Amino acid sequence: MNCSEGIDTRQVDELYINLDPIQAGGRLTTDAMKAVIAYGDGYSVCDNCVKPFRLDHISKPPLAEFHRDLAEFLNMDVARLVPGARRGFQAVAGAIVKPGDPVLLTAYSHYTEFLSVEQSRGMPFEIPADESHVITPDAAADRIEEVIRTTGKTPALMFVEHVDYQYGNLHPVADLTRVAHQYDIPVLCNGAYTVGIMDVKGKELGADFLTGSGHKSMAAPAPSGVLATTDEWADKVFRTTGVKGDLTGRTFGIKEVEMMGCTLMGVTSVGMMASFPHVKRRVKEFDTQVRYANQIVDALLSIEGTKVQSGYPRMHTLTRMNTIDSFDKVAKTHKKRGFFLTSALRERGITGILAGSTRVWKFNSYGINKEQAEHVSKSFIEIAEREGLPLSG
Amino acid sequence: MNCSEGIDTRQVDELYINLDPIQAGGRLTTDAMKAVIAYGDGYSVCDNCVKPFRLDHISKPPLAEFHRDLAEFLNMDVARLVPGARRGFQAVAGAIVKPGDPVLLTAYSHYTEFLSVEQSRGMPFEIPADESHVITPDAAADRIEEVIRTTGKTPALMFVEHVDYQYGNLHPVADLTRVAHQYDIPVLCNGAYTVGIMDVKGKELGADFLTGSGHKSMAAPAPSGVLATTDEWADKVFRTTGVKGDLTGRTFGIKEVEMMGCTLMGVTSVGMMASFPHVKRRVKEFDTQVRYANQIVDALLSIEGTKVQSGYPRMHTLTRMNTIDSFDKVAKTHKKRGFFLTSALRERGITGILAGSTRVWKFNSYGINKEQAEHVSKSFIEIAEREGLPLSG
Repeated sequence: MNCSEGIDTRQVDELYINLDPIQAGGRLTTDAMKAVIAYGDGYSVCDNCVKPFRLDHISKPPLAEFHRDLAEFLNMDVARLVPGARRGFQAVAGAIVKPGDPVLLTAYSHYTEFLSVEQSRGMPFEIPADESHVITPDAAADRIEEVIRTTGKTPALMFVEHVDYQYGNLHPVADLTRVAHQYDIPVLCNGAYTVGIMDVKGKELGADFLTGSGHKSMAAPAPSGVLATTDEWADKVFRTTGVKGDLTGRTFGIKEVEMMGCTLMGVTSVGMMASFPHVKRRVKEFDTQVRYANQIVDALLSIEGTKVQSGYPRMHTLTRMNTIDSFDKVAKTHKKRGFFLTSALRERGITGILAGSTRVWKFNSYGINKEQAEHVSKSFIEIAEREGLPLSG
Repeated sequence: MNCSEGIDTRQVDELYINLDPIQAGGRLTTDAMKAVIAYGDGYSVCDNCVKPFRLDHISKPPLAEFHRDLAEFLNMDVARLVPGARRGFQAVAGAIVKPGDPVLLTAYSHYTEFLSVEQSRGMPFEIPADESHVITPDAAADRIEEVIRTTGKTPALMFVEHVDYQYGNLHPVADLTRVAHQYDIPVLCNGAYTVGIMDVKGKELGADFLTGSGHKSMAAPAPSGVLATTDEWADKVFRTTGVKGDLTGRTFGIKEVEMMGCTLMGVTSVGMMASFPHVKRRVKEFDTQVRYANQIVDALLSIEGTKVQSGYPRMHTLTRMNTIDSFDKVAKTHKKRGFFLTSALRERGITGILAGSTRVWKFNSYGINKEQAEHVSKSFIEIAEREGLPLSG
C-alpha cells in the first residue's frame, strides 16, 4: 500500500509495539495528529501574525502563551522553538563559542553537540565516564582543571546530557553544573531524552541552557525542539538583529540572530503545542514507564548470560543490553543468523530493535502499557526457551 | 471548532480563495497531506536507516532517490534538504563568510539573508534597484567595485533574489552571476518564490548555490527547503565532520557540519517528496498562473487611480499594488475604515491580503483556477463600483 507516488504507507506504530530507541517519545498524540492535519500548510500559523512579527508573539493560534508555558514548564525564564535540539546547540555555540575556545562535552555527548562546536571552530574536550557509565562531578572538575592547564583558557561552554543516548543513564546534572559554575562555565543541559518524558526543572539542575527535542520526546513532528535559558543568558543567545541595509536603511525589527528569525511554522509548532497538555500530564507518570522498562530488563536478565549495560535498576526507559552470552550464541548457528531475534520479535508484534542485533543493542519501551510490558517480557523469555537458552531461577 | 485543547481548527484554504503573499505556493497537495498523516512521527523515515546513517542515503522511503532527483530538477550537482531556505543561507554563509568579510545583498534581500551574514559576522552591502525595481548587472558591477575600493576586500559571497518578496519581480540572475564571477564572487540565488513554482535551472542561472523553500513554494510542511550547489562548492558547504572525541576517539562518520547532521525527518521530508511529482508538473504550467495574475491586475488597473508597483505585465503571481488613489480614498470615510476592502473581499470568499490595507498591499494568486481568477477580478471591480470609485474604459 502506498500513500503517494513511490512512498509506502508507514504503519509501524499501528501494527507493532515499537521499541525503537529514538522513536518512542516522539510518537504523535491524537491531538497532535489532528493539529497536523488542520495546520499542514507551512505558514498556517501566520494568518494572524501582527507587529512585532515574530513567532513567539502570535496569539492565534496561541503560540505566545505556549512559549511562556513552555518556559515555566521547564523552570526556565525564556523558551524558543527550534528545528530540533541540535539547532539549539548550534544557537548556543554560535552565540558563545569563539574560534579556538575549549568546550567541554562528555564521553556520551551526541554527535550534533560535537558538530555545533566544530561549526563554531571551538575545541572539544570530553569528560570521561566512570565504570558505571555515569559522568561524575569529580571527573568534570579534573577535566576542567586539565583543560585550563593545557590550553591556558577556561572552557567557554559545557555540554551535559541529562540522560544520554548510549546507556540511557541519568547523570548528576545539578552537581555537574555546580562544578562548572565554580569556574564560571555556562552549562547546556541536553534534555533530548528527558524533556517531555520526565519532569525537568532547568533551574534546579542549574542549567544555563536547556534543550528538548520535539520529535524525540515531546510527541511532535520533526524537526522540532525547544531551547530555554535564563534571564542571565537570554540577551546573548536570543539577541536581536543589529544589522542594517547600508543603502536602504532597512532594519529587521526584533528578529533573533541565532534563531534566524522565526523558526517553526505550521505542523511542527502546532504539533508541539497540541501535544503539550498531554506531555505535561505524562511526565508525572514516568515512574510507571520506568517500572515497565525494569520488568522487561528483569525478564531479559532471567535468560542466563544476559547483562544490562545501562544502570540497573533502570531510571529511564532507554536501555542497553548485552546478549553476547545468550542470544548471540544462538545466532552463531541459527539459519537466520543474527536476524533470528528481531525476526522472532516481529512475529510477536514487536519491532524497533536494530535488525540483526544479538550482541549489544538498545530498546526504549517508553509509552507502552501494562499488557504490552507483559507481552514484551514474555516474548523475550519464550524466544530464549524456544532456542534452548537456559533460564535462571 | 477546535482541533485540540485551545487550538482552533484552521480552515482558511478550505473556505476561501487565499491570496496570502507567502502562503500560496506552500499549500500541501493531497499527496503531501496523506504522507504527512502516514509519516507524522518524527523519526518515521529512519526505520530503514543503515550505514552510513545519513538522511540522503535512506532508500526506504526513497529519500536518496529524491535527493538525486531534486538536484537534477534544479539543474545542480548536489542537493540537501534544509529546515527552510534560511537554513540554506546560514549554511552557505557559515561555510564561506569569515568575520569582517564584505557580503553583497540586494535592496530586496530577505531579512534571513541579512541574519545569516550577521551570524557569520560579515559586513552586508546592498546592490541598489533601478527605478523599475530590478537589480541590474550594472548596479552589481558598480557596487562590487565600490566595496572593493572602500573595504580593500573582494566580497566573499553575493546573494541575489530570483524573484523578490517585495515586488515579485524577476531579476536577471544569469547576468548578475556573470558579473560576480568576473570577480570570483560565488553567488547564492534565493529561489524561495521560484523553486517549485517556476522551472528553475540553477546552472543556466550561473548559481553556485540555489535555495528553495518547501513551505513557501514546494507544497511542503514547514520548516523545509532545499540547498543545492555545484561540484565546485559541494565539498566546502557540505563538508563532512573532521572532529574527534579527544578521550573516546569517537568520530562521526559522514555527517555534514553545516547541515548539523540529518536535517528533515518525518513530515517535512516526506511531505516535500510526496509533492515533488506535482511540483515537477506544475512548474510547466506557470504561464497560466501568470495569466490569471495579469487578469486580476488588469481588473484592478481598471479602477481609476490604481497602480501596479511590480513590473507589468506581471511575470510572477506575487504582486504589489498601490491603491492610495482609489481604495484608500474610500477608507478615509468608510465606517469600517481601512478594513472595508479586506472585509468586502472576505464576504466574497477571498482572503489573504493584510487586513486593513488600502494603500500599498500585496497579493499572490498562485494556485487559483480560471473560475477563481474571474471571481477575484470581478470582486475587486464590484467593490470599487459599490463604493462609487470610477472605472476607466
